[in-house]
Amino acid sequence: MLVVQKFGGSSLADADRIRHVAGIIANEYRQGHEVVAVLSAQGDTTDELEARGYELNPKASRREMDALLSCGESMSIALMAMALEALGLPVISLTGRQAGFLTDSQYANARIKSIDPERMRTELDKRNIVLLAGFQGYNRYDDVTTLGRGGSNTSAVAAAAALKADLCRNYTDVDGVYTADPRIVPDARKLAEITYDEMLELASLGANILHNRSVEMAKRFNVPLEVLSSFTPDVPGTKITEVTKMEKMQVSGVARDNDVARVSLVNLEDRPGIAARIFSLLAKAKVNVDIILQSIGRDDTKDISFTVSLKNLDAGLRILREHQEQIGFQDLVVSDSVSKVSMVGAGMVNNPGVAARMFEALSDAGINIQMISTSEIKVSVLIDKADADRAVRAVHDRFFGEV
Amino acid sequence: MLVVQKFGGSSLADADRIRHVAGIIANEYRQGHEVVAVLSAQGDTTDELEARGYELNPKASRREMDALLSCGESMSIALMAMALEALGLPVISLTGRQAGFLTDSQYANARIKSIDPERMRTELDKRNIVLLAGFQGYNRYDDVTTLGRGGSNTSAVAAAAALKADLCRNYTDVDGVYTADPRIVPDARKLAEITYDEMLELASLGANILHNRSVEMAKRFNVPLEVLSSFTPDVPGTKITEVTKMEKMQVSGVARDNDVARVSLVNLEDRPGIAARIFSLLAKAKVNVDIILQSIGRDDTKDISFTVSLKNLDAGLRILREHQEQIGFQDLVVSDSVSKVSMVGAGMVNNPGVAARMFEALSDAGINIQMISTSEIKVSVLIDKADADRAVRAVHDRFFGEV
Repeated sequence: MLVVQKFGGSSLADADRIRHVAGIIANEYRQGHEVVAVLSAQGDTTDELEARGYELNPKASRREMDALLSCGESMSIALMAMALEALGLPVISLTGRQAGFLTDSQYANARIKSIDPERMRTELDKRNIVLLAGFQGYNRYDDVTTLGRGGSNTSAVAAAAALKADLCRNYTDVDGVYTADPRIVPDARKLAEITYDEMLELASLGANILHNRSVEMAKRFNVPLEVLSSFTPDVPGTKITEVTKMEKMQVSGVARDNDVARVSLVNLEDRPGIAARIFSLLAKAKVNVDIILQSIGRDDTKDISFTVSLKNLDAGLRILREHQEQIGFQDLVVSDSVSKVSMVGAGMVNNPGVAARMFEALSDAGINIQMISTSEIKVSVLIDKADADRAVRAVHDRFFGEV
Repeated sequence: MLVVQKFGGSSLADADRIRHVAGIIANEYRQGHEVVAVLSAQGDTTDELEARGYELNPKASRREMDALLSCGESMSIALMAMALEALGLPVISLTGRQAGFLTDSQYANARIKSIDPERMRTELDKRNIVLLAGFQGYNRYDDVTTLGRGGSNTSAVAAAAALKADLCRNYTDVDGVYTADPRIVPDARKLAEITYDEMLELASLGANILHNRSVEMAKRFNVPLEVLSSFTPDVPGTKITEVTKMEKMQVSGVARDNDVARVSLVNLEDRPGIAARIFSLLAKAKVNVDIILQSIGRDDTKDISFTVSLKNLDAGLRILREHQEQIGFQDLVVSDSVSKVSMVGAGMVNNPGVAARMFEALSDAGINIQMISTSEIKVSVLIDKADADRAVRAVHDRFFGEV
């Protein structure tokens, strides 16, 4: 069996943690598996390097920043190699370049174009443990690139896809995906399995475990993922695959997202094409819109409300105000005291009653729903931020409480 | 004009020093020159990285240690690039690999096999300042290697040779080569010029400025060197070239070397081939021998004395004692309270009186000479360590005092 493991920076923060992770890698290898371990930079190394760069030049070029930041991962793999050598194991560290990670030239946010797995394959054939520097690639100019946020997760899934690995184990500081955030819902339960699509919905809803990019890539290349904790490596985590065996469970989890604001355009003229105009303006400004609600007003006017992430709010408001006349709205009403609570589950699509049960649970808890959005595997509601945690508990109780 | 500059770690210790060196590089570039700046790792980075590696594994493999240590230089060049970008200058950082430094596979002490200057040349043609990571290369397995002690000096001279540079400026924390160590001889004078051979003799005698390896390479490829200080970059340093213009000066400098011990084999049988046996044994044990003195004793015996560096002393004594019977000596007498004082000068070869003047100066100072060794451009004497500084001053006074 070929297993790709991935360890984040907090799992590698100091010499003791490195030794601990070396033990996890060694354990996998000693079971007779081929092992590729993808490592992030230690602890806060990336932030520290970035700060040192920006101290010298607040407008440092992305090429040089990539060259600088990639050193964090390069140091990690060399140190881990030494720790594994100390256990008497055959091991070799490889940078993104050595491992054949060719990317485009978008420094700081490069996309992998292809992976030449030959070197990794050769080292595995020699029975070496391969330590791969996450986050790194190189472009056709032979320069170092980095893969952006969550880059090491992307590296791990990409390596697993290129090597046709049997499993990509993602070690984090939580031991799996839960039916809700255990800090909000103390009796949240860990899921044994979940589909890629469910994971994608949960990740985008603030269950901060895996980056969407790596899950999307895992789905595309059908790489089985597992999320588990480096602190309790023997506890089975959550498997993320194409189809789960748990047909019965309609809902996989309940998530809350506080990074959201509601924007309402009030008293719009009711002309055709006005919604298209608004949302193409926002798209041009790279403002992603999530839930959209259009209501028929009195007379010939209507209101359009939608949600955006907080970081996009200012850009969105600016573009709308600049085009107020052209769009023809009277008022712009903004609220950032809102929260989005979502239920995710692949089984939902065949069970139309699921959404109703969710609304019922919220209603019973006296929580007012401002907006609703549904997809095949998700129901999201926008509610008052003050009610968010209570809403998560109420919905979770309704679906998981009685099991 | 194409200038290669080299800056050591102490010149790059923090953000302020980096900015200062950026100013020196910028100044060279703004004079219309093509500039390649070779950088070491910042301050104590190399030592710190090494310590972190050995903490995890006291027997860390050289391959992984090279991968780890090379990150120090990689970080330096990226940070310096940012500092130069902040000055509005076009700049690009290149690792040893990107700059085409192909080496053999002797990790930790690799030799440069060839340099493909194409990338550096292309970047210079674009009018970019090229920042080259010193100390680094890569081997035919596509792995990172490092060049050993003084590696960044070697990188600089090699880059200068490959690019046919007009000058290789080596910035250190002293502003040139002096006729003696200014800490011992306060009125020592800075030399404007010196030959490669003189520099080689001075370096091996403890004038700790340039490593022999880089001077040898400079001599082989006829790369003009200059040693100057990064703290006073406007003060002209010392030029090191094939032939100096200073024909008149017989002696370039006086140096002292305390890293030396004297070993005497007493009452050896006076048989043919005995010296050959002793020194081939020592050579096999990689013990370098410097001054050798053979004296005829009474009867049929003789004594042989020689000097070795302190770090080779134990190995040398071990091999001799193991073969005491075979060699046939009675006693082994060791002294490490000795010091070697040497006069170096290319003009010496045509002036046989120079050595005599040196001995006279020592005699006038009441200093006893234990051993003597001469070459075409050097006279060395072994004396009591307690007399060493006084001897340097006496010899320096005799040759430079009256000028």
